[in-house]
Amino acid sequence: MRKYGVIGLGQVGATVAYTLVQQGTVDELVLIDHNEALAQAQKIDLEDASARLASTTKIILNDYAALADAEVLIVASGNIKAIDMTSSKGRFGEYESNQAIVRDIAPKIVASGFKGILIDIMNPCDVMTDYLQRLTGFPHNRVFGTGTFLDTARMQKYVGQALGTNGKNVDGYVYGEHGNSQFVAWSTVRVNGEPIANFQAKQNLDLNQLEEDARQGAFAVMAGKGYTNFAIATCGVRLAEAVSADAQLACPVSAFDPEYGTYVGMPAVIGKNGIEHLIQLDLTTAEKASLTASAEFIKKNVDVLPQPVKN
Amino acid sequence: MRKYGVIGLGQVGATVAYTLVQQGTVDELVLIDHNEALAQAQKIDLEDASARLASTTKIILNDYAALADAEVLIVASGNIKAIDMTSSKGRFGEYESNQAIVRDIAPKIVASGFKGILIDIMNPCDVMTDYLQRLTGFPHNRVFGTGTFLDTARMQKYVGQALGTNGKNVDGYVYGEHGNSQFVAWSTVRVNGEPIANFQAKQNLDLNQLEEDARQGAFAVMAGKGYTNFAIATCGVRLAEAVSADAQLACPVSAFDPEYGTYVGMPAVIGKNGIEHLIQLDLTTAEKASLTASAEFIKKNVDVLPQPVKN
Amino acid sequence: MRKYGVIGLGQVGATVAYTLVQQGTVDELVLIDHNEALAQAQKIDLEDASARLASTTKIILNDYAALADAEVLIVASGNIKAIDMTSSKGRFGEYESNQAIVRDIAPKIVASGFKGILIDIMNPCDVMTDYLQRLTGFPHNRVFGTGTFLDTARMQKYVGQALGTNGKNVDGYVYGEHGNSQFVAWSTVRVNGEPIANFQAKQNLDLNQLEEDARQGAFAVMAGKGYTNFAIATCGVRLAEAVSADAQLACPVSAFDPEYGTYVGMPAVIGKNGIEHLIQLDLTTAEKASLTASAEFIKKNVDVLPQPVKN
Amino acid sequence: MRKYGVIGLGQVGATVAYTLVQQGTVDELVLIDHNEALAQAQKIDLEDASARLASTTKIILNDYAALADAEVLIVASGNIKAIDMTSSKGRFGEYESNQAIVRDIAPKIVASGFKGILIDIMNPCDVMTDYLQRLTGFPHNRVFGTGTFLDTARMQKYVGQALGTNGKNVDGYVYGEHGNSQFVAWSTVRVNGEPIANFQAKQNLDLNQLEEDARQGAFAVMAGKGYTNFAIATCGVRLAEAVSADAQLACPVSAFDPEYGTYVGMPAVIGKNGIEHLIQLDLTTAEKASLTASAEFIKKNVDVLPQPVKN
Repeated sequence: MRKYGVIGLGQVGATVAYTLVQQGTVDELVLIDHNEALAQAQKIDLEDASARLASTTKIILNDYAALADAEVLIVASGNIKAIDMTSSKGRFGEYESNQAIVRDIAPKIVASGFKGILIDIMNPCDVMTDYLQRLTGFPHNRVFGTGTFLDTARMQKYVGQALGTNGKNVDGYVYGEHGNSQFVAWSTVRVNGEPIANFQAKQNLDLNQLEEDARQGAFAVMAGKGYTNFAIATCGVRLAEAVSADAQLACPVSAFDPEYGTYVGMPAVIGKNGIEHLIQLDLTTAEKASLTASAEFIKKNVDVLPQPVKN
Repeated sequence: MRKYGVIGLGQVGATVAYTLVQQGTVDELVLIDHNEALAQAQKIDLEDASARLASTTKIILNDYAALADAEVLIVASGNIKAIDMTSSKGRFGEYESNQAIVRDIAPKIVASGFKGILIDIMNPCDVMTDYLQRLTGFPHNRVFGTGTFLDTARMQKYVGQALGTNGKNVDGYVYGEHGNSQFVAWSTVRVNGEPIANFQAKQNLDLNQLEEDARQGAFAVMAGKGYTNFAIATCGVRLAEAVSADAQLACPVSAFDPEYGTYVGMPAVIGKNGIEHLIQLDLTTAEKASLTASAEFIKKNVDVLPQPVKN
Repeated sequence: MRKYGVIGLGQVGATVAYTLVQQGTVDELVLIDHNEALAQAQKIDLEDASARLASTTKIILNDYAALADAEVLIVASGNIKAIDMTSSKGRFGEYESNQAIVRDIAPKIVASGFKGILIDIMNPCDVMTDYLQRLTGFPHNRVFGTGTFLDTARMQKYVGQALGTNGKNVDGYVYGEHGNSQFVAWSTVRVNGEPIANFQAKQNLDLNQLEEDARQGAFAVMAGKGYTNFAIATCGVRLAEAVSADAQLACPVSAFDPEYGTYVGMPAVIGKNGIEHLIQLDLTTAEKASLTASAEFIKKNVDVLPQPVKN
Repeated sequence: MRKYGVIGLGQVGATVAYTLVQQGTVDELVLIDHNEALAQAQKIDLEDASARLASTTKIILNDYAALADAEVLIVASGNIKAIDMTSSKGRFGEYESNQAIVRDIAPKIVASGFKGILIDIMNPCDVMTDYLQRLTGFPHNRVFGTGTFLDTARMQKYVGQALGTNGKNVDGYVYGEHGNSQFVAWSTVRVNGEPIANFQAKQNLDLNQLEEDARQGAFAVMAGKGYTNFAIATCGVRLAEAVSADAQLACPVSAFDPEYGTYVGMPAVIGKNGIEHLIQLDLTTAEKASLTASAEFIKKNVDVLPQPVKN
């Protein structure tokens, strides 16, 4: 039996739930939202599809205790309206409201006896993932964030478009914050097996523009529909599946890096223990500096939050 | 190559698109919405998921001409905010705005050279499906609506819950309008192969309440999230797949019944020609009367609309 | 984490394993066969597909202890060459060899600490399912056979073909032995919601021939390829999924009926406890007599086998 | 509507068909085999699964004319018993019998009016793919072979196992013949983004052994079950899907390289035109020499076959 939980049933959390139900990925799904009417609505809507689906999924509503034997818990809480992609604030628009959510849910998650892997989607992703780890006290490997998993997909897409190929043919990683201080580690990027540098020369690629496209990838989506959900939900589901299957899959996520003392986007291997280990690539000096700066920015924003009381 | 189109990229149309992309159901998907920013947003959000999906789907935006070789066109337009589930108006809240949409899109669909099957989700579903057929002039079989496909799933769910079994074990149909005048044809309902009447006696089932639950099934969802999308999108996708596969699958949909001269919810066989034929079950006299009344209500509401000019 | 086991890696067991791996249904799969080279070959062949699959499945070979936490164990052992579909012996050709296999594997399954649901595909299915239950001593609900789940699918197909509709539109059940004494309970068969009797009159259906077609459905397959695997493997997988999801799904399977004191094909509800309960339909007197005769035939063939020693 | 054809319904072709039907990948499937009883058996076995599958697939048997509007044709003919993996002959055991098959089927494929993409699995793969192209006269891009797509998956698997990671994390290609003269182009191989050379040093990897493992990957499977089917069928299906979706996906396949005047395994981009273009990586001098040698071996074996008559 596969059992996941989702906290936060706005557009992202609901789309995660829908994807899991539509695919029959899980047998039981615990859905939690403080908005009882919303939670009830998502459950009913998902259940109404049942007779039209090959699979059957049991949905449990607003019961933290049901998380005790869940393998994965996806946190997708937040107030999307607080995000302001048009200002430099960006995803930090949710900083105030979401830190309060973390303080609300972390003790409840701990009290539930949840023993699985917590995957955070909540923004600002790296900060909230770090805060969730600090307030739950879970080992670092058991908590990670979607981080730059989506930004990397966007980079792959934009590079693919620029070169007239499928983004799936593009390897490499976006590092750093799921936010403005992120960067593409171009030294890691290869297209159809060739270093991006080869194409840059031949095809006059503007790497700075492609990096900016990836960084601002959410902007046009937010502008047009007020939120993003399909791609980020897909990212969350893929990571959860990698945990269930103990897939040992290399993915860029927001992982705890002891070197920086915080969570930050970088490639890591995902398996049943969550973060199995970090992948340390030979970044260039400039990339290394960018990563340090991004990590410091994240850490600073976690450190100023009310910290857990040590006993 | 499988190619579908979707007109209307609000919650329902976008969820249809997401489901098709997530499952790799289609190779090309034409997305159309007069809100260019919204359309662009949905396209980008879907494409951002690409690197995280096994399949690849080409998305074509706001190009009616691209419908020329599409197999299926799902119409999911509408203004959800016009629906008022708390009054007797219900889905007729969209009556004014959606008839205007039909007048706008029907000639564009015709002009595109679309030769496939049109599946309407737009509300009030039966009225708008009929109106779409009249204004496109397509043969009746090439146009049908999701109608009571979802209401039937809801009935199956509620009966299943009342009897402690999976709704998939419940056979039978909701007939009539996808709206207030719909009814459960209890004479067609069987659970695990037994007529519902057997359970009614043994387990004191309140059929009237179950019928009302199915009829009002959207209410709690609308109340909690302001729209329904997951179940109705799933219904639309299943019907489209039945067309592509020429599945000859029996489904309750909004089909044109010559006896009533309008579209109304009843079982029909779905295949590559859309409605292959209606399924005529021996309804009780009371059920037959309910169906007549529901069909007359629908027809009346289509007849008063501006009709196509005959040459 | 979903974990299943499969014992017997001939065409059927291997196809079950392939289906589970291809769909990503399970996270861990325990494969067992006394032919070590064959088992190794199936494992390698399945693993070689890994880089071409979205999902990842861990395969554990020939380790009974790994069954301790498996949810479902599918037994697909047997010597296909012993089946003789051209004589009246049919699936009883495997009677001698497979009873020995049951005596070999039953104690090993018990010793493994397996606590899940055992689904038997091995032929003669009802006899071997009963024998497996007796020798494992597992509660009756935790052991069932695919029985007439496939024969029913065949009946649905043949009826559908005769009436020019999809077999999925045909409801009803084949009862009795997965073998010569099976029968179609025509009183339970409905097509698009109508009793088969209606079509028989209108379309001159030869029900006896259709019943014989379903009964002999394996013949042409055996004659042409020497075994059947695709349909039976699909049946096994669907039943396993119903267990994992606790789907409470009505399916005709080989279930223990206390009235007959043996396993025999009839509809039952499948859930996490295996057989949740039998479905008792109002069969005709003739159907009831056929069921009794079939059950007695099965029981007789189990009773003469060496029985477990009672302490 | 997606429509594929499969010629040759032995273990490989039948498993391709089963995968397509199980997943609902295609709406119509043309199955062709000169063994009428075998073909009939595969069709019936696949159709028997229908009532247990969400999707419906129309199966057309032994009708070349039905290939006229098929998108993809997978050729999986051959006489597996002629393969001798224990001698240096290997897949060339089928050389005699399969060249005769090519001469038999090529004109029938041409006569059918087939306008799609031909994917050859038949062994020796590169030779028979080349011969199929020559005898059909189809443009080179419309004919390609699975080639080293599977050998590459095996290399990924073995490297993954040696380094304790998922083979999906391993990039790079096996080049050359799908046979003894193939080689791993180690200069293209990266694990989790790092060149394999880094791991070779740190972890004492034996690259020669890993290359031999990939080359001999079929051996243990053949030894244990007499054929391979699951991985190769999965490879064939993935390539067909890439064609349908016009995925522009980089895959190592047997493609025609004008430099060598023959088909040989190398990375190429797969889309709706079949081979969209070759991917030319900077191989080392030794790798380049190995590729040349392998291509020359393949070409020599095609050139000696009876050639098409030029008009």
